[in-house]
This record gives sequence, C-alpha cells and structure tokens, in this order.
Amino acid sequence: MPSIDLNSDLGEGFGDYRCGDDAAMLAIVTSANVACGMHAGDPQIMARTFGIARERGVAVGAHPGFPDLWGFGRRVLPYTPAEIERIVAYQIGAAQALATYAGHRITYVKTHGALGNHAAAHEEVAMAIARAVKAVDPGLSLLAIALTAQVRAGEALGLDIHQEIFADRGYTEAGQLVPRGQPGALIEDPEEAAGRVLAMVQEGAIIAASGRRLPTPIRSICVHGDSPNAVATARAVRTRLEAAGLTLAPFRPAP
Amino acid sequence: MPSIDLNSDLGEGFGDYRCGDDAAMLAIVTSANVACGMHAGDPQIMARTFGIARERGVAVGAHPGFPDLWGFGRRVLPYTPAEIERIVAYQIGAAQALATYAGHRITYVKTHGALGNHAAAHEEVAMAIARAVKAVDPGLSLLAIALTAQVRAGEALGLDIHQEIFADRGYTEAGQLVPRGQPGALIEDPEEAAGRVLAMVQEGAIIAASGRRLPTPIRSICVHGDSPNAVATARAVRTRLEAAGLTLAPFRPAP
Amino acid sequence: MPSIDLNSDLGEGFGDYRCGDDAAMLAIVTSANVACGMHAGDPQIMARTFGIARERGVAVGAHPGFPDLWGFGRRVLPYTPAEIERIVAYQIGAAQALATYAGHRITYVKTHGALGNHAAAHEEVAMAIARAVKAVDPGLSLLAIALTAQVRAGEALGLDIHQEIFADRGYTEAGQLVPRGQPGALIEDPEEAAGRVLAMVQEGAIIAASGRRLPTPIRSICVHGDSPNAVATARAVRTRLEAAGLTLAPFRPAP
Amino acid sequence: MPSIDLNSDLGEGFGDYRCGDDAAMLAIVTSANVACGMHAGDPQIMARTFGIARERGVAVGAHPGFPDLWGFGRRVLPYTPAEIERIVAYQIGAAQALATYAGHRITYVKTHGALGNHAAAHEEVAMAIARAVKAVDPGLSLLAIALTAQVRAGEALGLDIHQEIFADRGYTEAGQLVPRGQPGALIEDPEEAAGRVLAMVQEGAIIAASGRRLPTPIRSICVHGDSPNAVATARAVRTRLEAAGLTLAPFRPAP
Repeated sequence: MPSIDLNSDLGEGFGDYRCGDDAAMLAIVTSANVACGMHAGDPQIMARTFGIARERGVAVGAHPGFPDLWGFGRRVLPYTPAEIERIVAYQIGAAQALATYAGHRITYVKTHGALGNHAAAHEEVAMAIARAVKAVDPGLSLLAIALTAQVRAGEALGLDIHQEIFADRGYTEAGQLVPRGQPGALIEDPEEAAGRVLAMVQEGAIIAASGRRLPTPIRSICVHGDSPNAVATARAVRTRLEAAGLTLAPFRPAP
Repeated sequence: MPSIDLNSDLGEGFGDYRCGDDAAMLAIVTSANVACGMHAGDPQIMARTFGIARERGVAVGAHPGFPDLWGFGRRVLPYTPAEIERIVAYQIGAAQALATYAGHRITYVKTHGALGNHAAAHEEVAMAIARAVKAVDPGLSLLAIALTAQVRAGEALGLDIHQEIFADRGYTEAGQLVPRGQPGALIEDPEEAAGRVLAMVQEGAIIAASGRRLPTPIRSICVHGDSPNAVATARAVRTRLEAAGLTLAPFRPAP
Repeated sequence: MPSIDLNSDLGEGFGDYRCGDDAAMLAIVTSANVACGMHAGDPQIMARTFGIARERGVAVGAHPGFPDLWGFGRRVLPYTPAEIERIVAYQIGAAQALATYAGHRITYVKTHGALGNHAAAHEEVAMAIARAVKAVDPGLSLLAIALTAQVRAGEALGLDIHQEIFADRGYTEAGQLVPRGQPGALIEDPEEAAGRVLAMVQEGAIIAASGRRLPTPIRSICVHGDSPNAVATARAVRTRLEAAGLTLAPFRPAP
Repeated sequence: MPSIDLNSDLGEGFGDYRCGDDAAMLAIVTSANVACGMHAGDPQIMARTFGIARERGVAVGAHPGFPDLWGFGRRVLPYTPAEIERIVAYQIGAAQALATYAGHRITYVKTHGALGNHAAAHEEVAMAIARAVKAVDPGLSLLAIALTAQVRAGEALGLDIHQEIFADRGYTEAGQLVPRGQPGALIEDPEEAAGRVLAMVQEGAIIAASGRRLPTPIRSICVHGDSPNAVATARAVRTRLEAAGLTLAPFRPAP
C-alpha cells in the first residue's frame, strides 16, 4: 500500500491576528496548505510557516483563496473565471517566492474555502484554476476534493492530480460534503473521525452517511486547522492510520 | 557605445482606477516596471500589462513597493528591514507568476517610490531588498538609482546591477534627487529633459544643477509614467538619444 | 411646478486615484452623492468634497456601497441583509461626521452601484437599508431609483422618500434600467439625454424605449459622474430644464 | 470621593478574527473603547459590541486608530496632522452611527495604540485630534493618557477631558509609559497591578518605578484587553478598588 498524506490549512493569521494552532499541527501533518495573503496570511506569516515546515519535513502547498480578508475566503465573490485564473496565478507565485526564500519549495496547489467549493461545482472555474497552475508551473501538483470538477479539470490539462477526503466532514449520497449547518455536516469526535478515515482509505472509497461507497483514489486526508478539535483530530487520524500499518508521507508527483 | 534602456513605472491602476497612459508609454519605453499589487496594481492589470509588453518587445521588471494603496507607495511605512525583505520577495514572486502566465518573463527588480528612496539612503534596507532578490532568483537583475546604497548592496551580494538616472528630476551636488517641492526638483519641459539626459549619458555622469559631474555607469533612464508630460518626455528622450546614434534596448545581464 | 434636483456620484477617488471631474460637476448639480470610504472615497476626499459642496450650495448625501474598492462597488457581494444594514449605518455615520467637520450637513442617503441595484430588486435588502437610515437618523431622506423596492421600503418605514430617474440610461417596459451591455442601455448623446429627461419630468413618468409611460413622482435626476460625457450631459440637462421654466434645487424633506 | 472608571479596548477583531475575551471584559469594565474599523473592528463587531455594552450598562467610546489592520494600529503611520484630523472624524462618526443603531450612545473618544502615543508626545497631533472631536460633536468627552499633550490640547479647545492611568504598565520618572521591551514595562501580576492602581488613585498621582509621585487627576483606569492576564487584571483591579470603598462607574461629563 502506498503512503498517505495528511494535510491542513495553516498560516491563516493576518498581521497580529492568529488562527489555529499552527505549531501543533506542523508536528502532526505531512503537508501544509499555506494561505497566500488574499483571504488570510501575509508575507511574514508565510515565510515563518514555510520555514517551520521545512525544519519539520512537512511539504508545502500554495493555498489561494478569494481576495476576501473580511470573509476569510469563505464566500463566493463575483469574480469571472478569467479573473480567478489571474488571482490564483498571483498567489501561487507569491507563495513560491516566499517558500524559496525560506529554503523550502511549493510542490502543490490547493484552493481554499469558497474558491475550492466553487471550483468543485463549476467546470469553468475548475478549468481556470487548472490553467493558472499549468501556466505558472506545470510541475506543480493539484490537490483537489475527491470526485469533483477540479479533478476532471486537472486531468484534462494533464496536471498531476491528487484527491483528498475530509476527516471532519460528512458526505452525501453523491459524494459531496454535507453543507455546514445540516445534521451530520461535522464530525467533531476525533476518534469517530479517525475511524471513518481509516475505513475510507482501506476501502478506497468515500463512505456516505447512508453507508454508500463511492470509489475514488485517496491520496490525502484533510483536517481543518481552525476547528476546535483540529489538533486532536489530526493526531487521532495519524495514530489510527499508523496503527493500521499505513505510512504517512507527503504525496509525490506521479512518475 | 552599448545600448541604453528607457524605463517607466506602469500598471499602476487598481480595480477600475487608472493611472497614466500605459498604452502610449509601452510604445516608447524598452522596460516596464510593473506594480505588484501592494501600492498599486492587481492581478488583472499585471497580466494585461505583461501581455502587452510581450507583444511590443518591452522587457518587464517587478516593481515592489510598500503595502500602501492609500499612499500609492509614496510614504515610508514603519516596516523593519526583515519585514521589507519578505514583502519584496512576495511581490517578486507574484510578478514572476503573472509574467510567466502572460508568456513573458521578469528579468529585473526595481523598487517603487518611497521604498526605493528608503533603500537608496539606508544600507540595511538596501541589503534586505538585495537579499530578497537573491533568495527568490539570483538570476534577476537589480535596477537601482545611480550612486545609492542599493547599488552597493547589490554589488555586495553579487547581483547583476544596473544604474539609472531620472529624465525628469534635478540632482543635488551630492548626486541625489532634489526633493519634490524644492526649486529645480522637476524638469517639466520634455526637450530640456531630453537634452539633460543626452548630456549625462554621453558624459557618463550625473550632472547636478550646479554643473558638477558625478561619474557613474548609466544603463537606464527613468521617465515617470504618471507625470503630466510623461509621454512627451519619454518620446523626446528617445528621439534625442536615437538622433545621437544611441540604440535603445533593454539592459541585459552582465555576461 | 416644484423645483427639481440634479444629482451625481462624486468623491469617488481613493488616495491618489481620481475618478471623474468633481470640480466641474459641483458647479452644475444641486446634490452630490459622496462615497463613504468602502467602495471609493477616503476621509480626505470626503472632507474636501463636502467643503466644496458647502461653498457652492450643493446638498450632500451619504452614498454607501459594498466594501469593495477592487470592484468599485459594482458587484453584488454576498453580505446578508443584516450585515448590509450595519455596513450602511457605518458609512452614513462616517459621512455625517465629515460633513459636519466640513461645515456642511448630510440630508439624504442614496445607495451606490450594485448595492442600489440589489436593493431595487430585493425587498429584504431594501428594508435593511431603510432600517439603517431610520436607526441612525430618521430625519434623513432616502433618494431611491423610481418604482423600486427601495421606494416601498422607505415608505413602509415612514422615511422621507424621493424618487430619481437616470439621464443617461435607457428603461425597459417594466421601468427598470436596461442592463449595461445591451442595446439602448446608455444614452451617450448629451442633447438626447436632456430631451428625454425633460419629457419624463413634464409627463411625470418614466418613458421606456418602446414609448410606454410609467407614472412616478420624479424629484431628482441622476447623471453618472464617471461616464465620458458626464459633465456635458449634466450641463445639457440643466440647461434644457431651466429653458423649460423649471427651477433646479436640492429636494427638501416633505413637511 | 468620586467614582472611578475602568476602561478597556474591545471589539478588536476583524471579520472572523477575534482578539481578547470581550464577553468577560464587558462583565467587569465600566467603559468600552470600541475599535472603529481602521486598525481593527468592522461594522458587525462594532454593532454587536455596542449592543452588549448597552445591555450591561457599560459606557462606550469611539476608539479611532491609524488605518493599519496589518499593524493593528501599533505603528505610527506617516499621516499629517490634517489627515489624522479627518481620519479621526470619520471613525467617530462611524462609531456614533453604529452605537445609535444598537440603542446606545458614544460619550467619549479615546485614541488607540500608536495614534494615542503619537498624540501624547506631539502637540500638533493632539490638537488635530481635539479639533476633530470638537468639530464632530463638542459634547463628546476625551479620555486621554494622564499628563500628556492630549490633555493640554483638549483643555485648550474646551473639551471635557478625563485622564487615565494604565493598570498593567510601568511609568518613568517623567510620568510616561516605560516603553515595551524595557524592564518594568509590563506589570503582569494581577494583584501587583491592582495594588499599584489603588495606591495611585488614593494618592491622586502617577507613581513612577522609582517611587516618584506625579500628581494628576485620575478619572479612569485602563486595562488592555488583549494581554494574557487582561481579564484577571481587570477583575483584581475592580475588586481591590471596591474593597477600598471606591465606586466604579463610567466618568460623566463635567457639569
């Protein structure tokens, strides 16, 4: 069985504001999705996060979002796909430069919050993002929510695509996230989350609330960095997977 | 005699705001210093400016400034040198990505407004900027105001340095710009500006208001894109230099 | 026949950026809708605009918009009605303070761009804005696009409501603005615009492209400050109305 | 003995970011200095903070700062006094509107962070702020750091001035705050802070580290809302003062 990646959104502060326990998460995850200054993050936080990730052997990805500090990137803003394409390109470049500056290297891109959900559901947005990645650096991987338009867009453009599942979110019959606010949307108990993750990884399928299986390659598991139980959930997932004989490591580009 | 470069600050709008006549300037200059989104510019404007520059054979440089849209980068903000270092790295990366996206390539960095003046006068700021350039991409050239701390910092770190003079600004006895607001600060007549530039280029020296000569290599001439006579001055400078047998072309990295 | 008001959006710069010819418009209009710092405007521009308006006897209104400098307030951002309510209250207060500071007084509120269009079409947004006006200062008038939800909301809350028509925009059969980009959306010829305005004012009705009349009280005429022919259109409208014996003056609260 | 006021900076989040434990502080203090959206705060947070303060009988003041979300208002930005005057007027108005909206009323102004320190030391900045307060609403009180230029400026313009001391900061021989980073700058132990406050209030003097007394009227005590021991310090100060027979209540304008 190949290794599996554990990722989390980090570096989500701004100026003096902080969000989540980055130090604790960086001791557990294998990949850090680092905010690029538009929905969160700033050059100081980015450089510091990349530097700590390097020291700990944690892979780093650019984590572009909508330019929306006020809304923390959790609202779909009315940008056209062409505008999104350039907004994403901008953020990837900024992240690459600061990672290089910190002695590390961006190996992948993962879209944040509302931009990720928007791309998951809209082919033309997903294509815009994939074009941005390819234009800036075709060697970058794309980490995408499993079974979404982003996966198809990345494949269409020949990008190295890796699919992720969420440790702390419930899934619908169609394999989509149960919207926040609905019953079963959030899995708050770390052990329950860890058990679900292990089952999905072992079966190679998303498991809906109903028990339905939706087969998909699973190369990475996402734990949200800003949920109350984030650290405990990340630790439980890691422990459970390792106990089952799995190796946790950053995903590698397909050869 | 080698060729000489003519540069201007471009892409200085933001959203719907515009600043200067970019289209006209891109038909005259050989290098465009493109704002990177912190004191001016946004991803759409950057991509568009890089695209037009590519079509016209105009070289493009990253033009980082203080994060100060309100002040248009013309105020020294109280960032430490270490913070400036990361702010500059961020902007270089964003510009590189969007230039690549637009089919072009960033070949140099020139600091904007107050950041440039701050670096010209403060060794530790100049070193921070030079370190940022070197860390992000040691192949980038640094375009610096002649005879300043930026030149020394770039040389100390082994960067490819090119020195510029200003077509539309007067110089003090010490070879510094006469501060705005003082007599002789601005050369508003295009023909007068062109005449001064030619004299300085031919003599290989900055010529102060008093007539004093301060020898310096001159590889580029800057015409401000947002002054009322910007286009006329750029055109007059170009015409005068070409009439004197000089070739205008982007500077090239030292071999 | 009562007097009629001529209004325009002014103070729409930001920092060093400028938008439209405020000085010329302030010599023609009777009311200035002044941007409040969220989609455009800043405290310096606001104070200056209020000061000049006071000198010229031009009435001033708060002109709140979405917090969207990038989009100049022309995009509907995903704020809830409750959030919009507070965003509008904030901007009204800021405008009141700076008008008072400049020796003038805010007498009305008019929503900007996408916020105005959003409120025109959505009852709950219109009510949120009307509640904000009433809560901050029930003595303020509301200047609203004729025949829209904003008029009904203002009336429902007992606000002093004044309806406006646009000099430079075409109307649909339903009395709504022809969307930008469609044929007939913009009336670019100043004399044509002036003729249409006079006809509508004299008939007390919006006149659709088809010739259909939609009766409405018309208390004010809006000329956009940032269109290429803004000053010429404003002047033509004023001249035509005065030639027809109408008096131009700011609208006054109903007694 | 008159009552004494206990104030703290609150509402210092932005969007999803939070800073300090506002709910706990609002149960202890008698006055809340509420951020106005430029260095921190946004319309939603402002309205919510004003609403809770009203329910708890806590007085509210506008707490304007430099427009510097990145630096949290803790850096002196290069605005001229005239610009500061309008920036302060803007923020006072925004706060007044949202307080009114929330059923409460702004009774005073206190400048935040670097703006407060800048005004404490520079007469022309202090005068600009006092002019802004007076122009917007001469009935507003000014809460100022004891023995500073702000006190003199407020008195010169006839404002109702109240002087405050800091519970958690050490004082120099000259009665100024020991700069952060120097020994004795911060008083971290809540009981030590409470003891010092009581001594200063009873003696009617600032007590420097050396023991020197600098007499001053003391109408209010400030506890910083974002320090680690903020809530414990506020509670200890309140308990100690009440145990000594003092009544805690918002300061009232001089009759």
